[in-house]
Amino acid sequence: MQVSVEICVIPMGTDASVSRYVAECQRVLEAAGLQPQMHAYGTNVEGDWETVFAAVKRCHEAVHEAGAPRIFTTLKVGTRTDKQQTLQDKVEAVNKLRRQ
Amino acid sequence: MQVSVEICVIPMGTDASVSRYVAECQRVLEAAGLQPQMHAYGTNVEGDWETVFAAVKRCHEAVHEAGAPRIFTTLKVGTRTDKQQTLQDKVEAVNKLRRQ
Amino acid sequence: MQVSVEICVIPMGTDASVSRYVAECQRVLEAAGLQPQMHAYGTNVEGDWETVFAAVKRCHEAVHEAGAPRIFTTLKVGTRTDKQQTLQDKVEAVNKLRRQ
Amino acid sequence: MQVSVEICVIPMGTDASVSRYVAECQRVLEAAGLQPQMHAYGTNVEGDWETVFAAVKRCHEAVHEAGAPRIFTTLKVGTRTDKQQTLQDKVEAVNKLRRQ
Repeated sequence: MQVSVEICVIPMGTDASVSRYVAECQRVLEAAGLQPQMHAYGTNVEGDWETVFAAVKRCHEAVHEAGAPRIFTTLKVGTRTDKQQTLQDKVEAVNKLRRQ
Repeated sequence: MQVSVEICVIPMGTDASVSRYVAECQRVLEAAGLQPQMHAYGTNVEGDWETVFAAVKRCHEAVHEAGAPRIFTTLKVGTRTDKQQTLQDKVEAVNKLRRQ
Repeated sequence: MQVSVEICVIPMGTDASVSRYVAECQRVLEAAGLQPQMHAYGTNVEGDWETVFAAVKRCHEAVHEAGAPRIFTTLKVGTRTDKQQTLQDKVEAVNKLRRQ
Repeated sequence: MQVSVEICVIPMGTDASVSRYVAECQRVLEAAGLQPQMHAYGTNVEGDWETVFAAVKRCHEAVHEAGAPRIFTTLKVGTRTDKQQTLQDKVEAVNKLRRQ
């Protein structure tokens, strides 16, 4: 099952600046062979369900190892059976309508 | 790794009333040996990471099998290394402060 | 416009234990005349759009005043034009199916 | 109070393809003078609290007017008192660490 996911990892019990923890997650997602698309409120990835969620788990492990005692993560998880659709397809579908 | 998760499954491309899909998820979560705590905006579960996320995947499979061509799920995922804390502990910690 | 909302306020740059900040939000939501339904991953409220979102803003103000330098909040926001539906109706619709 | 927000509007009771509803929201956010940064799982905006949340309400109104009987929206809402930080600053802080 193919899945597209947005992951947003919030370390708790740390400084207010959390970029170094987010950078750890980027490394994990890239090491998993995913091509993370980071934006200001999370990172979008797509791939096989098992691959993606194994990487999500490793993100939690990496952020704890980096010193965060608590993590609150939000995920958006999308699957569909009616057609294949990439992350890029989603953005392009809206942009195409905007150009009309 | 123990994890506490809120899952909120939104079927897309279906009728506006989605309670029968949510009921499918409740069955899946119970069959996984989790004790789902449903509320008006999702269902809270806790347990071993692998058990919980295997159940999340089966929720997607069950909701597609029930007829939804597309699913948008939001998850909140909590882990901590500083102490053990159950879902009930979280609620009780706030209620205790309110009673003071 | 009537709206049902789940609010989950995460203080950042604080201790890992955040119950006292959540308790502040409960006070704000009650003071707004809402009847907050707290669970382990947020609090559900319903009411007029303006009333609910004014209370959300006051939650942010109260949590900053309580000492959190940064706040990350997740909201789920539901509106519908096909019928009126309370938070309790949502839960009951699923439970009714489960009892059949 | 300055706020940065991610908005992700999910129409329910519609076709599985929802790009035309998302395009409506983009128009609303632009008309509000915000500079929406769309990605595959939502749109990021920043500005004055009142301006941003008035636009969120108009998104709901516009998507209902476009024919969706039910809407489920997720928002991430960020405020901080320790420093000013734009959406672009957030991304850049992580990228800077990655380049080291």
